[in-house]
Amino acid sequence: MGEFGIGQPVRREEDPYLLRGQGRYVGDVALPGELRAVVVRSPHAHAEVVTVDTEAARAMPGVVLILTGRDAATAALGTQRPHTRRTRRDGSPAFVTPQPMLATDRVRHAGEAVALVVAETLNQAKDAAEAVVVAYAPLPAVPTLADAIAPGALPVHDGCPGNDAFFHALGDAAATELAIAGAARVVRRRLTISRVLANPMEPRGCLAEPDPRGGRLTLRCTTQAPHTLRRILAGEILRMPEARLRVISENVGGGFGARGQVAPEYALACLAAKLTGRPVRWTADRSETFLSDEHHRDNISDAEIALDAEGKVLALRVKTYANLGAYYGADRAAGPPLNNLGVLAGTYVIPAMRVEVTGVLSNTMVTGPYRGAGRPEAAFVIETMMDAAARALGLDPVELRRRNTIPADAMPFKTALVYTYDCGDFGKNISDALTLAEADGFAQRLADSRARGKLRGIGVSSTVEASNGGLIEHADIRFDPGGSVTVSVGTHDHGQGHQTTFRQIVADRLGLPADQIEFRYGDTAEVDIGTGTFGSRSTVTAGSAIVAAADKIIAKATLIAAALLEADPADIAFADGRFTVAGTDRGLGLAAVARASFTPAKLPKGVDPGLFESHTSDGGVRTYPNGCHVAEVEIDRDTGVVTLARYAAVDDVGRMINPLLVEGQIHGGVAQGAGQALMEGIVYDPSGQLVTGAFTDYAMPRASDFPPILLGENEVPTKTNPLGVKGAGESGTVGALSAIASAVADALVRIGAEPVTMPATPEKVWRAIRAAAS
Amino acid sequence: MGEFGIGQPVRREEDPYLLRGQGRYVGDVALPGELRAVVVRSPHAHAEVVTVDTEAARAMPGVVLILTGRDAATAALGTQRPHTRRTRRDGSPAFVTPQPMLATDRVRHAGEAVALVVAETLNQAKDAAEAVVVAYAPLPAVPTLADAIAPGALPVHDGCPGNDAFFHALGDAAATELAIAGAARVVRRRLTISRVLANPMEPRGCLAEPDPRGGRLTLRCTTQAPHTLRRILAGEILRMPEARLRVISENVGGGFGARGQVAPEYALACLAAKLTGRPVRWTADRSETFLSDEHHRDNISDAEIALDAEGKVLALRVKTYANLGAYYGADRAAGPPLNNLGVLAGTYVIPAMRVEVTGVLSNTMVTGPYRGAGRPEAAFVIETMMDAAARALGLDPVELRRRNTIPADAMPFKTALVYTYDCGDFGKNISDALTLAEADGFAQRLADSRARGKLRGIGVSSTVEASNGGLIEHADIRFDPGGSVTVSVGTHDHGQGHQTTFRQIVADRLGLPADQIEFRYGDTAEVDIGTGTFGSRSTVTAGSAIVAAADKIIAKATLIAAALLEADPADIAFADGRFTVAGTDRGLGLAAVARASFTPAKLPKGVDPGLFESHTSDGGVRTYPNGCHVAEVEIDRDTGVVTLARYAAVDDVGRMINPLLVEGQIHGGVAQGAGQALMEGIVYDPSGQLVTGAFTDYAMPRASDFPPILLGENEVPTKTNPLGVKGAGESGTVGALSAIASAVADALVRIGAEPVTMPATPEKVWRAIRAAAS
Repeated sequence: MGEFGIGQPVRREEDPYLLRGQGRYVGDVALPGELRAVVVRSPHAHAEVVTVDTEAARAMPGVVLILTGRDAATAALGTQRPHTRRTRRDGSPAFVTPQPMLATDRVRHAGEAVALVVAETLNQAKDAAEAVVVAYAPLPAVPTLADAIAPGALPVHDGCPGNDAFFHALGDAAATELAIAGAARVVRRRLTISRVLANPMEPRGCLAEPDPRGGRLTLRCTTQAPHTLRRILAGEILRMPEARLRVISENVGGGFGARGQVAPEYALACLAAKLTGRPVRWTADRSETFLSDEHHRDNISDAEIALDAEGKVLALRVKTYANLGAYYGADRAAGPPLNNLGVLAGTYVIPAMRVEVTGVLSNTMVTGPYRGAGRPEAAFVIETMMDAAARALGLDPVELRRRNTIPADAMPFKTALVYTYDCGDFGKNISDALTLAEADGFAQRLADSRARGKLRGIGVSSTVEASNGGLIEHADIRFDPGGSVTVSVGTHDHGQGHQTTFRQIVADRLGLPADQIEFRYGDTAEVDIGTGTFGSRSTVTAGSAIVAAADKIIAKATLIAAALLEADPADIAFADGRFTVAGTDRGLGLAAVARASFTPAKLPKGVDPGLFESHTSDGGVRTYPNGCHVAEVEIDRDTGVVTLARYAAVDDVGRMINPLLVEGQIHGGVAQGAGQALMEGIVYDPSGQLVTGAFTDYAMPRASDFPPILLGENEVPTKTNPLGVKGAGESGTVGALSAIASAVADALVRIGAEPVTMPATPEKVWRAIRAAAS
Repeated sequence: MGEFGIGQPVRREEDPYLLRGQGRYVGDVALPGELRAVVVRSPHAHAEVVTVDTEAARAMPGVVLILTGRDAATAALGTQRPHTRRTRRDGSPAFVTPQPMLATDRVRHAGEAVALVVAETLNQAKDAAEAVVVAYAPLPAVPTLADAIAPGALPVHDGCPGNDAFFHALGDAAATELAIAGAARVVRRRLTISRVLANPMEPRGCLAEPDPRGGRLTLRCTTQAPHTLRRILAGEILRMPEARLRVISENVGGGFGARGQVAPEYALACLAAKLTGRPVRWTADRSETFLSDEHHRDNISDAEIALDAEGKVLALRVKTYANLGAYYGADRAAGPPLNNLGVLAGTYVIPAMRVEVTGVLSNTMVTGPYRGAGRPEAAFVIETMMDAAARALGLDPVELRRRNTIPADAMPFKTALVYTYDCGDFGKNISDALTLAEADGFAQRLADSRARGKLRGIGVSSTVEASNGGLIEHADIRFDPGGSVTVSVGTHDHGQGHQTTFRQIVADRLGLPADQIEFRYGDTAEVDIGTGTFGSRSTVTAGSAIVAAADKIIAKATLIAAALLEADPADIAFADGRFTVAGTDRGLGLAAVARASFTPAKLPKGVDPGLFESHTSDGGVRTYPNGCHVAEVEIDRDTGVVTLARYAAVDDVGRMINPLLVEGQIHGGVAQGAGQALMEGIVYDPSGQLVTGAFTDYAMPRASDFPPILLGENEVPTKTNPLGVKGAGESGTVGALSAIASAVADALVRIGAEPVTMPATPEKVWRAIRAAAS
């Protein structure tokens, strides 16, 4: 099993077919009689819907069905239980605003769905959508988070003056206040996390197929959490038995959290399929994804860090305002600002902490999780405050970090905020990353840059994030009578290479050749249950469930092997795919045992036929990937253009099943962190119109924007799961956002300029440089 | 649960969509880029294939691929293990003749596949198939079983002089010989079971879809045993890991055993799909189904029954020749003549029995199981011999049966041949059936017929058959987080109404409303494992597995309910879908418990999340449906036309889950028994050409051919499975073939005519009447 075992940098088996265009995306499936759906969207950020006149549109050629808010009135997101536990600042229940699938009396963000037009062809549907006449009475809009929290802000919903949908506080307020009051130094900053869009390559799309046999429905769509989507769609929106809805999500062109959205269009396609009895397809064009994919991040945090005279951190207090968008319906908007608050503790000993989060409504698209989902935001806050504190104390930022870093021998370490880190060596991350980055050569490189008339800065982030925790996951290992095996999991692969990774785990554990192992996911009919892929959880949860199921397989197969070999089960050993009788040369391969298991006559008494086992885990406990990223930027004084000059990172994602794929995850994560730090940004104008509605206005990083990304590793396996893995999906972004923002700030501060808010666009940087010069 | 519970005559929920044409048969699925395949078939029964010239055909418009025997040389049926255990008369191994998917050097039956033509359209494929030039050197053929076993018969395969592929004997030869030698009376007959064709409404068809992702293949086809087909196709023919082949068989228009065929065309479509990388569809037209569907029955039995002077049966000796067709490749041809030999013991006390079966090769299509699969044949032998013995002894056939019937209080009863009947009251079957048939009015009806110049006869069969035994079956019950439930089984519904029946079992056992229960089968990706539907096994095996899985569900849910209700599990009772705490009014519905099971925090320690359980049974032990059928026929002297005048039957299929569906099964079974007895028959001419290649030449019974079929019941639940069911799929045919043939013989014998061989066509009957008159 050596070449395919755990720890081997096996190349992705998915690539040959994905790169050749042989994957099966939603667009690759074609059903007879497909109808095409187009959504009529609001051009206003905020308006009353006076009338929706579909008469002319209904008479257009090929039109089969038009749905308006009235038709879909019972379908809305926002009756899930988590809401009921949330409260507002005064203790009253959270202001939950069910998100309609189609607007009825009011629209609250530009691009909100108002009607669905279903026709024989896409062009017929588009033409008819243009013929739907909606009379709007425009209202003033609240287009940004700053507007929404400003005193006297207009309410987005009549019942929610102040726009605060929920309030959540954690940590000891009194102790923190005391520590701050008595500190030698307190540094305060208002920090802004910009609004971005994940922009997976594949736009959102779906194909809903009705099946008259008992009112069944199959939905193929771009989701990264098929079972979770099914649960919400069936239970909350379509109100049908979950067992009748099948969700299929095969290849998906990138998820990043964004494809966990419970998209109104998916529900509408299902409704239309039920009503027409025909398959209904909807596919977003790129401007629709800008308007109607969930947006991400968009926080304002007022942070205070208190230190003693020696630079020991005494306390951290953070008040965060999180932009939920126009509705607090699905609970997804609350996830990032709430679920990962613990990351604010960072890699440091911080004796007192207090955090307050307010969920804020605005006339913008709703927000949801995006790579890191609160972790990069929290890391950005603590890391930026560490940099600011270092500057305030006149200390090197690395030195300040070293003085406060949690030592490896203090593990497990209980932070002041929620988390107890199980293991890790944060200090070694920093040392190794600085070595890898050749940080001691920075002074020379700075001098070189200056000689060329450029600015240069270095940024170091030392971060930790939580993965996993409390959501079930499932794996199933099923031998067939021929002796090959099918492994299925409830997580979802949308580009990460799970097939490769999970086959490595199975091959390693069961000693089977890789070509006898089939891998399945992404179909609620094929996979018993699951939660999905997000939060760096797949290998941790599904990987561990695979191990547990494999161990059950071995246990049962041992009994069968003993019977076949006429030996006592206690004398049977399993290694490298083979059962052997202790002290003899007799043995049997696992595949042979599996084949025999289907012949009842060959089985020992009490053993059921077949060889298939599953495991459903409760998700296990949290574990903490961590790392240190070092970024260097060079800035052109005259244009403000920031170039990422050097990048090095040492990550501890626990045991690496496949180092090649871990590297890929970190590379991609760094790219997304860099994108947000340097160029990406969703912008609404003062009237609430989306300014950045296309790639011409929304810059994404390209391969040519990056230097070689040097990666080191500091593998500290966790004991919280049998594989020792911690999750590798998000650490790249968590580390990169802070490190790159820090490097830009460093470059600017070195010439006396003020740090800029993200993204560090040429215009902002140029203005900062100009302001410092004047 | 009353209205939907076990024992209720619930109407079939399948009917509304099946009758509206909304089922999903292979022909209802359409894939983008489908190619169409047409098979080039041999016009000769026996010939050398000199050359196959495809050059002109390959140049025809639209042709994508042509496969010949050379291309498919490694694909053949006949390497399965059961063969290796069989022997010939001299003890040498059975003469196994792997059945090629495409003929190479020789063809051995009319219609044998020689080439596969794949083109863009069906018409292009048909045109090109006509352009394939095959040069044959015809050889003399062996077109019937009688020819094949005649002394000096030509060999169908060079290595098999005498055409006997296997020989199988059971029972004590010496004791039987001794009993026969010492008997007061020995009656001898040569009995012929005709060759018939099941003719399901839906012709065979398939659609093979390649998936470049890891060399996967999906085959949609008309099979009644998806997992079994997958095992053989993948393991023996396509030689690929079973896990990579997915077999889907949704709605199928009738099976009757015939759709268990491992059809060469399915394998060829898979090969073509792999080679072209496109979906390949093949559908038989009706003449192709006559040529290439497996044929059925076709035995000659030399039987001897020995009795004492009082009419007590002392011994039965039967030598059967079974026509296997041109190849003994798949083991299916051996099933009917071998697997159900035990039925020869009938419902009678027969102290000594000896049976010898010879499997015989001939230049005809291969044979395979058909409704009853050996049971109607065996019942026909013993029942015909009982009639003959009664005539020889001058006894009423019913009286002879009564003297020899196994009494109910002798159960369990070990027969002299393999079977031990677990329970049943055969005597009551006879009494009740005669009452239902108003047999005491027969004399009057006979007089009435005679007065109208007609013959009349009555036939009584008292039969028993075995169901189940030794093949695994699987059921899975899976709650989703919304509280609805999916039940899946490894058996296959192709018209029987399993969805209705199995939902009744689940609803009854779990106390759930029917609309919360989804049912799944027929997809190897959705169902973990299974064997399939045949041999009256589905309710016995899958029904029992459902019960076992449901009991596991209740056991686990009890633990969770106890935790939720804060009670001791020992104090929790489950009834009517509700868990209650003993001595309190506190309780929780199963669906609520299921929903809670997905939240780990609510679970007691040691209980995994979720609520899904499966059970794989070893198939359990055999059980014995039985019954008595009474048929009356009237015969027109001048035309020989036989009219089925009256029909009554009392069957004991054990406990009836749904009496309405059991009645339907028996009605259909009677129709198929009547068809074989009266009109159906596959005929080859002396050159081996199929004469009956269309419905114009092959008569099938129609509704108008039947009088009301009166059904009674004699429900004796078996203790061999938790439901008490015995299987209802075949008893109609088992009873009807004998009873109707007996009635025809009775009518003829009453006027001194000789009984005719089946089918009792007007011509044969007219000739018998004429011969008696002259």
